Amino acid sequence: MSKRSEMFLPEQWPSYYKKARGIEIWDLDGNKYFDFSIMGVGACTLGYADPDVNRAVKRAVDDGSMTTLNCPEEVELAELLCALHPWAKMARFARTGGEAMAIAVRIARAHSGKDKVVSCGYHGWSDWYLAANLADKKSLDGHLLPGLDPAGVPRGLEKSTLTFSYNNISELEKVVSENDDIGVIVVEPYRHREPQNDFLLKVKKIAKKINAVLVFDEITIAWRLNVGGIHLLFGIEPDIAVFGKAMSNGYPMAAIIGREDVMQSAQKTFISSTYWTERIGPAAALTTIRKMKKINLPQHLKKIGKMIGDGWKKIAKKHGLKISVLDPEALVTFSFDYGADSQAIGTLFTQEMLVLGFLASGSVYVSYAHKENHVKGYLKAVDEVFGIIKNAINNKNINQLLKGPVAHSGFKRLT
Amino acid sequence: MSKRSEMFLPEQWPSYYKKARGIEIWDLDGNKYFDFSIMGVGACTLGYADPDVNRAVKRAVDDGSMTTLNCPEEVELAELLCALHPWAKMARFARTGGEAMAIAVRIARAHSGKDKVVSCGYHGWSDWYLAANLADKKSLDGHLLPGLDPAGVPRGLEKSTLTFSYNNISELEKVVSENDDIGVIVVEPYRHREPQNDFLLKVKKIAKKINAVLVFDEITIAWRLNVGGIHLLFGIEPDIAVFGKAMSNGYPMAAIIGREDVMQSAQKTFISSTYWTERIGPAAALTTIRKMKKINLPQHLKKIGKMIGDGWKKIAKKHGLKISVLDPEALVTFSFDYGADSQAIGTLFTQEMLVLGFLASGSVYVSYAHKENHVKGYLKAVDEVFGIIKNAINNKNINQLLKGPVAHSGFKRLT
Repeated sequence: MSKRSEMFLPEQWPSYYKKARGIEIWDLDGNKYFDFSIMGVGACTLGYADPDVNRAVKRAVDDGSMTTLNCPEEVELAELLCALHPWAKMARFARTGGEAMAIAVRIARAHSGKDKVVSCGYHGWSDWYLAANLADKKSLDGHLLPGLDPAGVPRGLEKSTLTFSYNNISELEKVVSENDDIGVIVVEPYRHREPQNDFLLKVKKIAKKINAVLVFDEITIAWRLNVGGIHLLFGIEPDIAVFGKAMSNGYPMAAIIGREDVMQSAQKTFISSTYWTERIGPAAALTTIRKMKKINLPQHLKKIGKMIGDGWKKIAKKHGLKISVLDPEALVTFSFDYGADSQAIGTLFTQEMLVLGFLASGSVYVSYAHKENHVKGYLKAVDEVFGIIKNAINNKNINQLLKGPVAHSGFKRLT
Repeated sequence: MSKRSEMFLPEQWPSYYKKARGIEIWDLDGNKYFDFSIMGVGACTLGYADPDVNRAVKRAVDDGSMTTLNCPEEVELAELLCALHPWAKMARFARTGGEAMAIAVRIARAHSGKDKVVSCGYHGWSDWYLAANLADKKSLDGHLLPGLDPAGVPRGLEKSTLTFSYNNISELEKVVSENDDIGVIVVEPYRHREPQNDFLLKVKKIAKKINAVLVFDEITIAWRLNVGGIHLLFGIEPDIAVFGKAMSNGYPMAAIIGREDVMQSAQKTFISSTYWTERIGPAAALTTIRKMKKINLPQHLKKIGKMIGDGWKKIAKKHGLKISVLDPEALVTFSFDYGADSQAIGTLFTQEMLVLGFLASGSVYVSYAHKENHVKGYLKAVDEVFGIIKNAINNKNINQLLKGPVAHSGFKRLT
C-alpha cells in the first residue's frame, strides 16, 4: 500500500524506477530524483544499493543462497541479535514483517494457552490483527482502525483482538478488567510520541499480572534511535520482540527474538516455510547491523533528521505557514495545519518538490546516505515550494494549482 | 521443518553448508556432496547458483533492489504469468508460500463473503489451515493431519476449515452437503497420484454450484511437469492459483494469480507488506521461467527422474528388496516396504549414501543440474547401499548398523 502513487501524487508520481544508489533514484525515463520520503518504506537506512551490504549479498548469491542444507549466517545472526538483546535467548526468522508478527502471536498464544490479543499500534495485514476491525455489527466493520477493511477475515475471530491507545494505560486496564482470557499483549513501543508516565513499564506489569506474553513490534522503529530494539533505550524487556525492514537494508528479512521459555513454545505448534531458510536475508542483516554499529548510524540519523526538522520550522516561520513537526528525528515528520485543506496542501508540496527533483512527502525516513549537502539542497527547494504554497493559500487557489487528484491519506494508527 | 537434520539423519547429517553449485554442496568442513534429495525443499529446479538467474539477481542488486518506487520486473512477471495462464488476468506477489496461501484464502473469503474453507493437501503453517486440526475436543487436536499441531491457533476458528482426501469426491460432496456456508475450496491438484475419474473437474463443478472460490495450491508441483501450473495439463482452470518455490530458483518469491472479478475483491480488504515489493524476487522469477521454457526443463526432469526411478526398481530387484516407487518422475520418490522397520531402513540408506558422498532421501527433487553422469554415479552408490541393506535385513542388524537415531517422518498429507 505505501508505494502506491495515490499515496503521494495521483497520476503524476514516477511509480517505477530503473536504478537507485544512495538517495538517488532514476525513473524509467532516466529522470533523477533525490529521495526525501520513505526510503523503501523504511527499509533502506544505509541508503540504496549500499556497497558493503551488496558485497555480502553477492557473495551469498555466488556461493548458492538456497540449498538442502542450512546457511551458517542464520546462526551467526541469531547470536548477534541475542548478544544485542541479552534478555532474549532464541531467534526465529521470517522474510516479511507481517508473517513475523503472525509467528510471534502464534508462539505467544501457544505459550499462554489463551487466544485473546490486546494490541496497540500497526501490525500488518494478518487475520489476527485485522480481526480487531470485526465489529459486533457488520456495518461497523473498519470503524476502529479506519482504512483497514477486514473483509475476508473469518467472523469466528470477532473479539479475538481488542485494542488500546498509546500512552493510555487506563484503556488497557479497562480491557483487561473486562476480559479474563487475554494471552497476548502486542505494542509498538514507540512511533512518534515517547512513552509517558512509565507507559511501557506499566504495560509489562499488567502482562505479567495476567500471564500474558508481551510482544513488542519493533519492525518500523528499531535500528534508528539505537542499534537494536528501542526497548533497550527504555530499559523495558518484552517476552518477544519482532524486527524487519531496516535490519537488512532492503533484502527480505524479519526476526522474532524472545525469552527461552516463551520461544520453546514454538515447538508445540507447526511453523515452517521454505524460503525462511535462504541465505541472502541473514547475510544482508549481519552486514547491515555490523555496519550500523561501526558507523554509529543512529547518531547520523539524529543529526540529519534534526537539520531537516529545524529547517522545516524555520522556513515555515519565514513564510508564515502553520506546520507541526513530529519526532523522532530519525523518522522526522511534518504536516500542514490547515484543517480540511491540509491534504491538498501536502499534495501540492509533493507535486512542486517533484518538479525540483525530490521525492518528498510528510515523512523523511532518514538514511546514512542523506548527507548535509543533500539536506541543504532539499531545504532550498522546500523554501521555494513553501513560498508557492503560501501564495496559493493567500490566493485560495491550491486546488487549481494541483495537476491531478489530492493524495490519499494512509490508515490511522492507534498511536 | 524440512531442513532439520532429524528429518534425514539425526546427529550425523551435515546441517550447514559453505557453498553450492549445480547439485554439489560443500559442508563447513569442505566435504563435497551430490544432492539427490530435496534440492532446497524443491526450490532449485535449475540447480544451485544457476548462472543465468544469478546474473539477473546481481543486476537487480547493483541497480538497487528496494526503493520508494516500484520495479518494472513485477509488471513484466504479472504479464508473463497471465500469458502462461490465459484464464488469469491479475497477479499479486508475496515472498513465501505460506503467506501467499493466506493471501489467496483472504481474497477468496472476501470474494465469496463466506468464511468456511474445505481443503485437500498441504498448505503451510497459517492459522486458516491449521484450524482444520482444532477438534471438538481439545484432546483430539492434531488428529486429522498428524504432525501439524494447532497450539496457538485461536479456538474461534474451530470448524472454519474442513478437509477431504485427494481423489475422493464423495468426501467433498458429504462436507458440502453438511455445510451451507463454504466460501473456499483449496486443493493441491497433484502430488504423487494423478487425478482419477475427472476429480479436478468434479471439484470445480462443486465449487461453482455452491459459489465457492476454487484455489489451486501449486507451490510444490508447478513448473516441474510443464512450464506453468499443472492445471494447464489437465485443462481445469481454478479461480485462483498459487505459485512459489521453483518459480524463482531459490530466491524468495510467491505469486497469486486469478480471475479478474475474484482478484478485484482484494481491494475490499487490506493486504500489504514492505518486502513484497523488492526486486530480486521478480527478477529471479522472470529469468527462471524464461530459462525453463528455453531449455524445456520439464522434459529433462522427466528423463532424469525416470532414469532414477527405473534404477531403483532394477537395483532393488537385483538385491531382492521390496520398495515402492511413486510418480511423478520430476519428483520421483521411493520407500522401503518393510512395515515398522521401513523408517530405520530408510535411515540406514541415507547414512550409507552420505558416506559415499550423496545427500539422499526417499524423494529426489530432480533439477536441470542433475545430468546422466550424475545419475550413473548415484545408482552405483545405490547398488552398494542396497546390498548393505539386504545383508542387514537378512542379519536382522539394521539398528546396530545405525550410528545415530532413526530419522523422524514428516507430517501426513491428505493426498
